[in-house]
Amino acid sequence: MAKIYKVGILGSTGYTGATLTGLLAKHPNIEIVFLASQQYAGQKFSTIYSEYRGLVDIECSNIDDEAILNLNKDEIDLVFFATPNGIAHKHVPGLIAKSIHCIDLSADYRFKDLDLYTKWYGFKRQDQATNAQAIYGLVEYNREAIKKAAKSQTMIIGNPGCYTTSSILALAPILEAMADSIDTKSIIVDGKSAISGAGRKAATNLLFSEINESCSPYKLANQHRHGPELETFFSEISGKEIQLSFSPHLVPMSVGLLTTCYIQFTKETTEADLRKLYETRYAAEQFIKLLEPELYPQTKWAVGTNQAFIQINYDPRLKRATITCAIDNLMKGAAGQALQNMNLVFGLKENIGLN
Amino acid sequence: MAKIYKVGILGSTGYTGATLTGLLAKHPNIEIVFLASQQYAGQKFSTIYSEYRGLVDIECSNIDDEAILNLNKDEIDLVFFATPNGIAHKHVPGLIAKSIHCIDLSADYRFKDLDLYTKWYGFKRQDQATNAQAIYGLVEYNREAIKKAAKSQTMIIGNPGCYTTSSILALAPILEAMADSIDTKSIIVDGKSAISGAGRKAATNLLFSEINESCSPYKLANQHRHGPELETFFSEISGKEIQLSFSPHLVPMSVGLLTTCYIQFTKETTEADLRKLYETRYAAEQFIKLLEPELYPQTKWAVGTNQAFIQINYDPRLKRATITCAIDNLMKGAAGQALQNMNLVFGLKENIGLN
Amino acid sequence: MAKIYKVGILGSTGYTGATLTGLLAKHPNIEIVFLASQQYAGQKFSTIYSEYRGLVDIECSNIDDEAILNLNKDEIDLVFFATPNGIAHKHVPGLIAKSIHCIDLSADYRFKDLDLYTKWYGFKRQDQATNAQAIYGLVEYNREAIKKAAKSQTMIIGNPGCYTTSSILALAPILEAMADSIDTKSIIVDGKSAISGAGRKAATNLLFSEINESCSPYKLANQHRHGPELETFFSEISGKEIQLSFSPHLVPMSVGLLTTCYIQFTKETTEADLRKLYETRYAAEQFIKLLEPELYPQTKWAVGTNQAFIQINYDPRLKRATITCAIDNLMKGAAGQALQNMNLVFGLKENIGLN
Amino acid sequence: MAKIYKVGILGSTGYTGATLTGLLAKHPNIEIVFLASQQYAGQKFSTIYSEYRGLVDIECSNIDDEAILNLNKDEIDLVFFATPNGIAHKHVPGLIAKSIHCIDLSADYRFKDLDLYTKWYGFKRQDQATNAQAIYGLVEYNREAIKKAAKSQTMIIGNPGCYTTSSILALAPILEAMADSIDTKSIIVDGKSAISGAGRKAATNLLFSEINESCSPYKLANQHRHGPELETFFSEISGKEIQLSFSPHLVPMSVGLLTTCYIQFTKETTEADLRKLYETRYAAEQFIKLLEPELYPQTKWAVGTNQAFIQINYDPRLKRATITCAIDNLMKGAAGQALQNMNLVFGLKENIGLN
Repeated sequence: MAKIYKVGILGSTGYTGATLTGLLAKHPNIEIVFLASQQYAGQKFSTIYSEYRGLVDIECSNIDDEAILNLNKDEIDLVFFATPNGIAHKHVPGLIAKSIHCIDLSADYRFKDLDLYTKWYGFKRQDQATNAQAIYGLVEYNREAIKKAAKSQTMIIGNPGCYTTSSILALAPILEAMADSIDTKSIIVDGKSAISGAGRKAATNLLFSEINESCSPYKLANQHRHGPELETFFSEISGKEIQLSFSPHLVPMSVGLLTTCYIQFTKETTEADLRKLYETRYAAEQFIKLLEPELYPQTKWAVGTNQAFIQINYDPRLKRATITCAIDNLMKGAAGQALQNMNLVFGLKENIGLN
Repeated sequence: MAKIYKVGILGSTGYTGATLTGLLAKHPNIEIVFLASQQYAGQKFSTIYSEYRGLVDIECSNIDDEAILNLNKDEIDLVFFATPNGIAHKHVPGLIAKSIHCIDLSADYRFKDLDLYTKWYGFKRQDQATNAQAIYGLVEYNREAIKKAAKSQTMIIGNPGCYTTSSILALAPILEAMADSIDTKSIIVDGKSAISGAGRKAATNLLFSEINESCSPYKLANQHRHGPELETFFSEISGKEIQLSFSPHLVPMSVGLLTTCYIQFTKETTEADLRKLYETRYAAEQFIKLLEPELYPQTKWAVGTNQAFIQINYDPRLKRATITCAIDNLMKGAAGQALQNMNLVFGLKENIGLN
Repeated sequence: MAKIYKVGILGSTGYTGATLTGLLAKHPNIEIVFLASQQYAGQKFSTIYSEYRGLVDIECSNIDDEAILNLNKDEIDLVFFATPNGIAHKHVPGLIAKSIHCIDLSADYRFKDLDLYTKWYGFKRQDQATNAQAIYGLVEYNREAIKKAAKSQTMIIGNPGCYTTSSILALAPILEAMADSIDTKSIIVDGKSAISGAGRKAATNLLFSEINESCSPYKLANQHRHGPELETFFSEISGKEIQLSFSPHLVPMSVGLLTTCYIQFTKETTEADLRKLYETRYAAEQFIKLLEPELYPQTKWAVGTNQAFIQINYDPRLKRATITCAIDNLMKGAAGQALQNMNLVFGLKENIGLN
Repeated sequence: MAKIYKVGILGSTGYTGATLTGLLAKHPNIEIVFLASQQYAGQKFSTIYSEYRGLVDIECSNIDDEAILNLNKDEIDLVFFATPNGIAHKHVPGLIAKSIHCIDLSADYRFKDLDLYTKWYGFKRQDQATNAQAIYGLVEYNREAIKKAAKSQTMIIGNPGCYTTSSILALAPILEAMADSIDTKSIIVDGKSAISGAGRKAATNLLFSEINESCSPYKLANQHRHGPELETFFSEISGKEIQLSFSPHLVPMSVGLLTTCYIQFTKETTEADLRKLYETRYAAEQFIKLLEPELYPQTKWAVGTNQAFIQINYDPRLKRATITCAIDNLMKGAAGQALQNMNLVFGLKENIGLN
């Protein structure tokens, strides 16, 4: 009989939390112990998301419920934070102290440099020790670190942002292997995201009539928080100081995310060589699909899955590569990747509950 | 009493042609002499576009109708080509010879270099002399040339492409005034277009169920025809050889186009200085709206208008500017600009029929 | 020189108010004296609706501003209420007393029977006398009453609801002329509305991600306020007590409204006869387009116009007619019709500013 | 170890066929023997539907391939027809003769009365005997008949249409139990369908730019083929001659279907009584979700599932019930229901592969 792990979700009724809840409810090794929701405490999850009637009828509890924070290791194995930024860091140290694993889908545990975190997110932090032991949960790049750590310690995983995930999957093979051949200040990530990425909050600018039939950039030129998250990761993986431009855009669709990533080479290369690099790097990765020449990624292919679709283009005139990557922002960009991380933490097969 | 000019449209039932027809029907100085449509010849225009019932009930004639090609100067003043590429160049020389003005919304008269045209569009050309006298109809940059020529000669205007228009409005002030301060190979134009830009043809990949809820790039890395059109214009205006990356994307909306344009400076500048440059350059331009800081262009603002909305961002860390521009791809990106050109050709006020 | 009338709008920044503002700004006989907005007082109209930059840069004033309520006849000719229900009835009597015309786009002046109004809208009323003199502004049916009254009195017009307008245009010819041939309890109006009909309020259920890719009914079986508005009008025009079913639905689009109206005949008729009836009734109506057989109304044809597109179908097996009508919910369904009413009040040509 | 059944699909690359292929590929008891596609023969299924890369890489074969038609019982257990109307009836008799089960998702086996079929679909039929043994695959109403027959004979199942499925689930409980209390000519089904229901064919009227931001009826007043399909079923189940109005509409979304069904009672009833009737009738049905009062079905809840969401409203003034039902047109309305039927045919649990 399958071993069952007990998990809870804080922030279960946002779009990310709800996607995660849906995945966990179908996962053969998981029992959901609680679903917390500040806004909908006291209501059944399936009242807010009627598509889950008969599937997830658990009543949402209050995020500040003492009962949750007082849970012990034998009652719960892992807590997911699908909460707004600035909340996880208050609760994670206490849970870790009780040997309860944590996976944080917010930004709280994505930065080793807490000053950088505070600069971009505003919150002051008291949990230096906990933060130091957090692992950045981009599985395709940190799988071994996660697996190794999971054998000996209680885990805190900082689940990457959606734009970041797509950009890393698109560019990291080059940064990892060819850092000496690129202009370290040349990277431009032009992101196109569905509206669900903005969350489920009642705001005029997210109304259907405002978003529909329009496309728009926002926070251009080093004003969006995913920029420093990307620079941190790319600098680490390349061993160089990477500085880049990140340009997010809103596209009128519910789910899906595309990044168009530009990188300038300083030495000659070819599209064929780059393609070979990616094929090798991702040969064993079941959630990465490299596309043959002239087939471009469509976000809808990724929707509802944990897949990333990647295309590689290179213009020899300009020595510039254009790498495009499409994912589901709520899946590989958030909840799907969190589940992938959870599977690793529990020593399960990485794709359980993700096919 | 208003002077009336007589015009005809070839290709009147595509999206661009229909938008142009609608504008012309409401223009106080225009009489439509014919609407030609290969596909719908013999049907009323308002049968195909029912929104025009009672407004444009003209019967569409056949594009190859002798009657059209035999029209004389006293029967018609100007012919618009809203036809696929490769058609206008066969008919324009004959019309010009009869002193009938031509405005071509296809690509046929956008290139001084006919070899470049043939390389990208495939068609061989016999009309070198006519082509040599064509003017590129980006009004904000060629207004004086058009006005001057219109006084003394029969005009052939090559109306710019939609992506090109948006990109030129976004970047030309820098290329015009600061060509010595930029990296001539650094420009990247990341375009996001509505589906109407692909035209009104029965193709599986343009079906609602294929396009809806998806975003996708196409023809990346120097494979799209608007790349060389842009390079030609930018090289001319800057006096340098400009080579750039152009990356078009499809966004699930009917109308609207956004370009996100990146340019690398080699000398220090500031956002304030760039803003001043644009304010000066576009001070007298009624169809250009510069946005105050932190307000980003939304394509829906431009829909149904001839306006371009432009925002300027600059990252001093990287000496890189990000200029964004939103237009209606069928208006300022095609039919609206064609009308603007027509007004110039006839010596009318530039905004008649465009407000 | 054109005579200029001075108008003001309360509630100018909702979708209906903004559409009306746009129409008035382009109307050759209108000067906008004030735009009031509770939410955006102190901001320029064009800051909230950037598409109007350079066109409507008036600063919004506060709806409770004494200055507005103290305006005199020589400063203002007419006030539009594009406010939520329950507000107009407080201000209209005072304005009428100062001989300032009022057009109310809310429900306050749509009911002769104030008990019925209070039952459905909740607000108690003190303005019986003013209400008694209000005219229901469905122009195609009350034109003569409006024109006649406008010659001798200060006007208060109750502008019809969007669903109601579409349903009346679809069914009234039958109710007017064939009331003896129908089952008075058989009418069913199945309405499909764009989301802008729900207004511009920050509510979770109106978010893009909630509305997109979904269709849903609401307030079925005599629970929606447009039901009694319809019953009142149809009973009056037919001289019979009409009771009907009204079923509104939300459709994922920004603008447009379709009503599918069913009516049971008790005597034999034919589609041809019905068609003739409509052709006669609407022969002189420039904003009504009857469609030839087998062409069905598409809401997009009406978008941005004051037109209504109507199709007539009849099933002789069941003696049941199905009449469909498409309008722009913000135009003929609200602001366009309000302008049509204003033109009548001022004795202007009915279509000025509407083409 | 799970018993494996071998199946093939004709018409695998239409929207219905592709949805079915996806379901079958994940079904633990199924091996796909062939995927046939007239249009894409010779290409991998995952080339046409890239979301299935690595999941369904089978090469599509030609529908007329002798190899398929010559398959024997030991090579294949069941063939699905996801073909256009008029194709299945040519192949099914031969397959049945070889003891190969058939499930037809087209209309060919939905009518006992072949004259009625020919009247509406045009095709002449030679397979009276085979047709006589076909069972209409609306599982919730014909489950026992299917299970019983499956024990003793080779099965041909006529899978119901999408509109029909939704309408039957909405109305059949009343027709089954209260046929004496209703007006047999009063039923009106007002259907709202996503565009995928129109299939994957390159047609101008299905282009994104034509469909987006518009809503439209079609084939009103007894002109749509699902009308007689409904009348046949309802007449059978009620024992009365039912004649009804069916009004289909296109809604701008990719997937989902809503029917708003009206029925006139001749005797008094109450909403509570109707609710009780439905609760009892559907108590054991895992794919039917009855909604509590004031919660209305949203098509998006059903998308990607085999669920039907039903709400019951009753207006005692008019003795009229309004029953609404939302399904996924490609799932419960086509492929999902076909899989449900297949599970029954093979004696598997009904929900395998459907959760």
